[in-house]
Amino acid sequence: MINKNVMKNKRVGIIGAGPSGLAQIRAFEALKDQGYVMPEIICFEKQENWGGMWNYSWRTGVGKYGEPIHGSMYKYLWSNGPKECLEFSDYSFDEHFKKPISSYPPRPVLFDYIQGRIKKSNAREYIRFDTTVRWVSFDEETQKFSVVLDDLKIDKTYTEELDFLVVASGHFSTPNMPYFKGIENFPGTVMHAHDFRGADQFIDRNVLIIGSSYSAEDIGVQCYKHGSKSVTLSYRSNPIGIDWPEGIKELPLVTHFEDDTAFFKDGTTEKYDAVIMCTGYKHKFPFLPDELRLKTKNNLFPDQLYKGIFFNQLPQLIYLGMQDQYYTFNMFDAQAWVARDFMMDRLELPSEAERRFDMDRWLKKNNELESSIDNVDFQSDYIKDLLALSDYPHFSVDKVAEMFKEWLLDKEEDILTYRDKTYQSVVTGTMAAQHHTDWMDELDDSKERYLYAAEEEEFIPERI
Amino acid sequence: MINKNVMKNKRVGIIGAGPSGLAQIRAFEALKDQGYVMPEIICFEKQENWGGMWNYSWRTGVGKYGEPIHGSMYKYLWSNGPKECLEFSDYSFDEHFKKPISSYPPRPVLFDYIQGRIKKSNAREYIRFDTTVRWVSFDEETQKFSVVLDDLKIDKTYTEELDFLVVASGHFSTPNMPYFKGIENFPGTVMHAHDFRGADQFIDRNVLIIGSSYSAEDIGVQCYKHGSKSVTLSYRSNPIGIDWPEGIKELPLVTHFEDDTAFFKDGTTEKYDAVIMCTGYKHKFPFLPDELRLKTKNNLFPDQLYKGIFFNQLPQLIYLGMQDQYYTFNMFDAQAWVARDFMMDRLELPSEAERRFDMDRWLKKNNELESSIDNVDFQSDYIKDLLALSDYPHFSVDKVAEMFKEWLLDKEEDILTYRDKTYQSVVTGTMAAQHHTDWMDELDDSKERYLYAAEEEEFIPERI
Repeated sequence: MINKNVMKNKRVGIIGAGPSGLAQIRAFEALKDQGYVMPEIICFEKQENWGGMWNYSWRTGVGKYGEPIHGSMYKYLWSNGPKECLEFSDYSFDEHFKKPISSYPPRPVLFDYIQGRIKKSNAREYIRFDTTVRWVSFDEETQKFSVVLDDLKIDKTYTEELDFLVVASGHFSTPNMPYFKGIENFPGTVMHAHDFRGADQFIDRNVLIIGSSYSAEDIGVQCYKHGSKSVTLSYRSNPIGIDWPEGIKELPLVTHFEDDTAFFKDGTTEKYDAVIMCTGYKHKFPFLPDELRLKTKNNLFPDQLYKGIFFNQLPQLIYLGMQDQYYTFNMFDAQAWVARDFMMDRLELPSEAERRFDMDRWLKKNNELESSIDNVDFQSDYIKDLLALSDYPHFSVDKVAEMFKEWLLDKEEDILTYRDKTYQSVVTGTMAAQHHTDWMDELDDSKERYLYAAEEEEFIPERI
Repeated sequence: MINKNVMKNKRVGIIGAGPSGLAQIRAFEALKDQGYVMPEIICFEKQENWGGMWNYSWRTGVGKYGEPIHGSMYKYLWSNGPKECLEFSDYSFDEHFKKPISSYPPRPVLFDYIQGRIKKSNAREYIRFDTTVRWVSFDEETQKFSVVLDDLKIDKTYTEELDFLVVASGHFSTPNMPYFKGIENFPGTVMHAHDFRGADQFIDRNVLIIGSSYSAEDIGVQCYKHGSKSVTLSYRSNPIGIDWPEGIKELPLVTHFEDDTAFFKDGTTEKYDAVIMCTGYKHKFPFLPDELRLKTKNNLFPDQLYKGIFFNQLPQLIYLGMQDQYYTFNMFDAQAWVARDFMMDRLELPSEAERRFDMDRWLKKNNELESSIDNVDFQSDYIKDLLALSDYPHFSVDKVAEMFKEWLLDKEEDILTYRDKTYQSVVTGTMAAQHHTDWMDELDDSKERYLYAAEEEEFIPERI
């Protein structure tokens, strides 16, 4: 007989109310609906609202209360992968929007979707907003975490004792910003992608973007779309290498700057008005003692985490979403459900040595990956491994993997039109709608325009 | 007989190696030279070099290791008060530069001066660079502070037990950034003065500066000097009200923005390319539990601090430089010498109630201040009060006060030429040199140009 009472008097702390933290809350709620007694759940969120990265803020640097800004989100961000690859398997896009929508919605639409699921429950009651974690310690004797919190609104610190600690604070918030000789005398704007809030201020400007990651690609294309005079992407090892439209080009790495001139490895020199460093992020957990810190580069299988979740030396310490990501919302869900089952005593972990053995197997596979397609397959296998461990509603991971591979080709074929493609949901089977406007022609990213504009559009003779 | 051995085995922690923290180290060194046994002194500095605000960084947002950037320093910053008002009384400008220099040197020259004094000793050995304080607690039983440190370079946390804690982390690092309706859709650059790194990116732009403090005045004038198309200063209560040159004007507070248009209280509307918020800073001590935090607005006598230094409920907790400042380096010195004497058992503090009484007296006076001249007199009285308590070399505070008052008039008379005036040192009696170039014509703020250019200048016929 299942003991539905096992979590009585246990306390779970969740750091962050973004997609991962909310997934954890949702996972508990799902069991509550089955009659289980819940532990006490407290979620600490630094921002004044939930949504994590999807909660857009105009602010940069530090926020209202002087805490480092979490968000790296910018205006005019549209999903850069098909929404069918991230769909919650327990809350479909159809359920939320009541009609088919396109495969690449803009940020406010995805934010709306994330909120839709969590608003069905009382999740908000678990969350303490404007609350930042200052310091965590773990008491070996009591086997409890002691967490120092700072209630930013009333400038008050206090401590909570917890049995489990879920770190869901993300890893796209702390910029990695390398130094290039002479950058200190560059007269124009110098910023990291973290502080980019939209292309408007770069209209008619010559923009240099350093990096060849998704940020570089997306910010570069946005600047082009919104009217920058020119966009140069500078790569360290390999160019993105697709067929760029006129106005965007790739050059090898900058060696140094002299005034407003950038010097590149191949001898090219060019003048710029702005430099945007899309040079990645650091996993940073200033609130944890270093022996509990996940120390990793951004990759598909961070060391130290069993099943990519449990801190191996102390599995009561749980990390969500710390992987580099193809899968996003649905991966956080799959992780959160497994984490929940461990916390609820529904899942027993093997010994530390066995866990280490399992981790090493994954790490070895991870080290052998060569192409983006390998990466997709690796993360798909990882998701399958997780799905087998919990009752998170299964979905066809293989079909999602296929979509990712198509998406990779779409982007390579035409970076300006791939967002006009449509995909089929693995949750509902629904085919995405063709959007009312081609992505390149759509400068308005509001939810209202996205969801309703087409229906209200005036009579357009050409369409007859 | 004086017991020169009293500090044996005592440990002092200093947070920050800026002008205040370095003053504290210098104060101890001065007694060491008299044969006293020093306590163990450890200074924790988040940046990779000393100098605090005077250690310029091109970075904004967060630094190399993801910590919030301390500095609000910008290129082309020249002292905005006569250097004779901040001169160390134990290390004159003459001693450092070996020749008279002008009264308003640029940042690199003042930075050089600060370093000159401290380089005479082994101060660097006390300082742990790239080290940030995570959390402080105080043990009532042992009467010791427990300080959690984070060695950013090696990503390692550790704890130190200390008898005294000197908080010298400044209060011009955490921006106060108010929200104005519509600012989230302003298409141009939006930044706080904290992130301003020089006027270069605002050449030919229409710049809106919100604020009427020293930052607003100085950043506005710099933008004007370096070629902004127009500068508007927007004030909340009172305009700076001086006779601005054509190209700078003052308007009342912004009510809201629509796209790139700002709406002002008086009905004016105007379009801008950039908004710089010179809206002040917050006293912020995230590493302290709130019962040990100084909670104050920026003013000349923060409550909670006896003699503006000792946290009244726990005088082993010392704050330096937390006042709004007319006096700067010499005030930090005067405070550090008094703090040192308390820590070295050379100065006994009265009872908590007597201290409270003294503080209330100062607070009452502070509340009655009306004009800038009143403020200067208040802070001069405060400095005199401190000087009477220690052996910091006395200087004529009255003469410095007179200089401050002249300076206020100079600025009012002509904001563009006040930096060409000269003053006389109260430490050495030396009259400042007339600088080789008028401030408005000097676009190069390097130490080399400042100190040596005149001597190397080519033959200029007009000067004959």
